[in-house]
Amino acid sequence: MQDFRPIFFVLGILLSMLAVSMLLPAAVDAAVNNDDWQVFALSAGFTLFVGVSCILATRTEAAMLNIRQAFVMTTGAWVTLPAFAALPLAFADLNLSYTDAYFEAMSGLSTTGSTVMVGLDYVPPGILLWRSILQWLGGIGIVVMAISVLPILQVGGMQLFRMEFSDRVEKALPRAAQIGGWISFIYLALTLTCATLYWMVGMSGFDAINHAMTTVATGGFSTHDLSLGWFKDLRVEMIAIVFMILGSLPFLLYLQVIRANWRPLFKDTQVRWFISFLGIAVIGSAHLMALHQDIGFWEALRKTSFNVTSIMTGTGYATDYSFYSWGDFAQPMIFALMFVGGCAGSTTCGIKIFRFQVLFETARVQLKSLLQPHGVFIAYYNRRPIPESVSESVMAFFFMFAISFAVLAAALGALGLDFITATSAAATAIANVGPGLGPQVGPAGNFAQLSDPAKWVMSAGMLLGRLEIFTVIILFTATFWRR
Amino acid sequence: MQDFRPIFFVLGILLSMLAVSMLLPAAVDAAVNNDDWQVFALSAGFTLFVGVSCILATRTEAAMLNIRQAFVMTTGAWVTLPAFAALPLAFADLNLSYTDAYFEAMSGLSTTGSTVMVGLDYVPPGILLWRSILQWLGGIGIVVMAISVLPILQVGGMQLFRMEFSDRVEKALPRAAQIGGWISFIYLALTLTCATLYWMVGMSGFDAINHAMTTVATGGFSTHDLSLGWFKDLRVEMIAIVFMILGSLPFLLYLQVIRANWRPLFKDTQVRWFISFLGIAVIGSAHLMALHQDIGFWEALRKTSFNVTSIMTGTGYATDYSFYSWGDFAQPMIFALMFVGGCAGSTTCGIKIFRFQVLFETARVQLKSLLQPHGVFIAYYNRRPIPESVSESVMAFFFMFAISFAVLAAALGALGLDFITATSAAATAIANVGPGLGPQVGPAGNFAQLSDPAKWVMSAGMLLGRLEIFTVIILFTATFWRR
Repeated sequence: MQDFRPIFFVLGILLSMLAVSMLLPAAVDAAVNNDDWQVFALSAGFTLFVGVSCILATRTEAAMLNIRQAFVMTTGAWVTLPAFAALPLAFADLNLSYTDAYFEAMSGLSTTGSTVMVGLDYVPPGILLWRSILQWLGGIGIVVMAISVLPILQVGGMQLFRMEFSDRVEKALPRAAQIGGWISFIYLALTLTCATLYWMVGMSGFDAINHAMTTVATGGFSTHDLSLGWFKDLRVEMIAIVFMILGSLPFLLYLQVIRANWRPLFKDTQVRWFISFLGIAVIGSAHLMALHQDIGFWEALRKTSFNVTSIMTGTGYATDYSFYSWGDFAQPMIFALMFVGGCAGSTTCGIKIFRFQVLFETARVQLKSLLQPHGVFIAYYNRRPIPESVSESVMAFFFMFAISFAVLAAALGALGLDFITATSAAATAIANVGPGLGPQVGPAGNFAQLSDPAKWVMSAGMLLGRLEIFTVIILFTATFWRR
Repeated sequence: MQDFRPIFFVLGILLSMLAVSMLLPAAVDAAVNNDDWQVFALSAGFTLFVGVSCILATRTEAAMLNIRQAFVMTTGAWVTLPAFAALPLAFADLNLSYTDAYFEAMSGLSTTGSTVMVGLDYVPPGILLWRSILQWLGGIGIVVMAISVLPILQVGGMQLFRMEFSDRVEKALPRAAQIGGWISFIYLALTLTCATLYWMVGMSGFDAINHAMTTVATGGFSTHDLSLGWFKDLRVEMIAIVFMILGSLPFLLYLQVIRANWRPLFKDTQVRWFISFLGIAVIGSAHLMALHQDIGFWEALRKTSFNVTSIMTGTGYATDYSFYSWGDFAQPMIFALMFVGGCAGSTTCGIKIFRFQVLFETARVQLKSLLQPHGVFIAYYNRRPIPESVSESVMAFFFMFAISFAVLAAALGALGLDFITATSAAATAIANVGPGLGPQVGPAGNFAQLSDPAKWVMSAGMLLGRLEIFTVIILFTATFWRR
C-alpha cells in the first residue's frame, strides 16, 4: 500500500461530481424560496473544495490503480461519499443528528431505502430531491462498479461477468469509460421514460421525477410517508413494477438491445431465473394470502405482485397493504425474499440470482458425484462451464454473507432490539432492501427510534452488502497491509 | 435400485434391536405396577415380528450394500424406526395422537429434544425411560453412522474423516463393526459415569440414569417439565456441562484416549475451535447479560455457561433462568448459536465445527487470491490440505442447509406460526437443538399446540438435519432412480 495518491485522485473526482449534483436541490429550493438552498450551496462549496483539493494535490499521477489501491478506493469512496452527502441533511432544519444524516445518506447511496425521516410530506422539496438523487447516483454507481470494477477484483464470483477487454486494470479503464457512458445513457433514458409514465398517470412532475429516480435505482425512497401507497393508483404500481424489474436486469444486455439485438436478453439464463422466481413468489404468496385472508385470488395477486417485486428487487416501496398487514404467514417468506436480489450488473443488491444459479448447480453436481464418486461432473452457467474459481468465490461469498448477517443481527440484538426488529433490520441492511419486519422497522415504521450505535451498525451493514462483503472485509486482513 | 433386499435385512436387524429395548420400559412399568407395561410388551412384540419377518424374508442375501442402497437404507431407517418407536407413546394413556407420538419419537431418535408432552412429572416411569432410551440409541446411532457410513457416502464433507480402511463399503463393514463396538463401549462408560455423578450429587437413581442418557446423547429430554431447572443445583448443571461437552467431541479421538494417547484429543483443531468458540460465546454473553440486567458478571456466567453449552451442543435442556428470560439482547445470538453444533463424529448435530473451519479457510484463501489472482493458495484443515472435493461438499452443504432452513421457516409461517416461532422452530428442528424462541416454543413452552401439519414439517426438518441434508435430498433426484 505504497501510494495513496491515485486513490485520492479518483475520490476527488467523485466528490466534485457529488458537489455539482448538490446544486440541483439548491436550485429547486431557491426556486420555491426555501432557505435550504443556502445549506445545499454551502455543502456543495465545501465538498467541491475538498474534492478539487484532492485532485490538485495528486494530479501529477496517472490514475492507474493496482488491485490493492482499487480495493481501498472502492470502499473508501462508499464510506466518504455518504459523509459529504450527509452534510445538507445534517445542516438543514430537519432535526437530524449527523448519525441520522449519515444513515440516510448511506441508505440513499447504497439504494437501500431505509429512512430515519418522518413527515416527508412536509419536508422542503430540495431535501426530497437530494434523497432521490443520492439513490439515483448510487444506482448508476453500482451498475458501473459491477460491470467494470468488481469483475476485475473477482469479488464474489463477479469474474463470471468479466469482459474480454477487462483482463488488466490499465486496459480496462478506457473501454470501461466508454461502456460506462452507454450504460449511463440507458439509465437516464429508463429514468426519463419512467418519469414520463408516472406523470402521464397523474403524478405531479416533482413526484414523477423523484419516484422515477428511486424506482429505476431500485432504491425505494419516496416523497411521502405513505410511500407509493399515497397515490392509491393501480397504474402507478404497475409502472413501478415494470421499472423495478427493468432496474433488476443486467444492464450490459441493454447495450445489445439498443443495437436491436434482443436475443441475449431473452436467452440469458439469469434473466429467465429471475423472472421465473419472481413469478413463482408472486403467485405462490397470492395463493397463500387468499387462503389466509378473506380476499379473492386476483385481489391478493395485485397486492403480492407489487410487494414481492418491491422486496425481492430490494426497492422497498410500501403501500397501504404492505406485507406487514398480511399477517404472520408471510413474514418468514418475505424475510427469505429479502436476500434474493436481482441480476448481476443491475442496480439491485442482495445475494443475486446468478449466485443462486451457481450454488444450485454446485449442489446438483455434488448430488451426482455422491452417487458416482469417481465420475466427473461439470457445473454450467448460461450454457458454459463454471470455472472452479468462480464456484469457490460464490460459495465463499454466500458463507461470508450469512456470517455477516448473523453478526449484524447479534450486534443489533445486543444493542437492545427485539428479535424480529434485530434480525430483519440486519437483513434489510445487508441486502439493501429498505423496510424490515415488525411494528418498529416494518413498512409502517421507521428507523428513527433506533439508538445511534444501532444506526452505525446498520450503516456498516449497508456498506458491506453493497460492496459484496469481500471488498470491505479484505481491508481488515493482515495480508492486505503487508508488503 | 434393483434390489431392496439388503435394505430390508439391515432394517430388520435395527427394528429387532428397537423391539428388544422396548422391554426395558416394560420391565420398569411392570415393577411399579403400571399397566403401560402391556403397551410396551405389545409394541415390542409387533416391532419384533416385523423386524424378524424382514430378516427372514431377505436372509439369503449377503448384507453388502452399494452406494444407492446405503442411501435408501440410511434414510429409510431414520424414517421407519421412529414410526415403530412411536407405538408405545401413541397407545399409552397419554392423549397423544399418532402425529404427536411420531414427532416425539423422531425428536428422541434424532436427539433433538423438542417435546409435545406436558406434565412430565406425572407421566409413568416407563414412558419417561423410553424417551430417554430413544435419545440414547439415537446418539450412538449417529456416532456410528458419522464414523462408518457418512464418510463413505461423502456427505457434506464427511469424507474428511474417512479412515484408511473405509475405501470400499465391503472392506469397511467388518472393521466398522469392530470400531462400532469400541465406540459403544466408550459411550456406555460415559453414560454410566455421568449417571453415577448425577446420583452422587443427589438425583434419584431413575432421574440420574434418564438424564445421563439424554446428556451424553446431547438430546435434552428430561423427566421433569422444568427440565434440569427442577433440581436447582449448581453441581447438577456443572456435571451436565461437562458431559454435554464430552458428547460433542469426536468419539474417534476417545479411542486413542483409552489407549492412553491423549495427544490427538488436545492437538485436534476441531476440538480446539469448539472449546474456544464455546468459551467466547459463554463469556461474551455473560458480559452482555451483566450489562443489560441487574446482576453481576459471575452470576451471569453461571447462567450463560449452562445455557450456551446446552444450545450450542444442541442438547436443549432448560433451567428456570433459560435464555427466554434473558431479554431481547440474547435472542439473535442464541438463534445463531443453534446452528453451530459440535464436532464431527459426536452425538451433536447442526452445521458442526469442522465445516466452519473449512468454510473460514476457504474464505481466507479466497481473500488471499483476491490480492494475488494468479497465486496458488491452499486451505488447511488439521494441518493437512483440504481436498477440493471436500471444500465443495462442505460449501454445498452449507448452502443446502440454509435453503432447507428457509423453506422450513416459510412453510411453518404459511401454516400460521408467527415469525419468531416459525423461524426458531425451523432452526431448532434442522439443527436438532430442542427448544425454540418466543413464548410458544421457547424453553418455557412446548410444541404440543402446533398443528399436525406443522408437526410433520418439523419432523421432516429433524430428519433432514440429522442425516446431513444430502442423504435425504438425494432420494428426491431423478438421477438417483435412473438406471
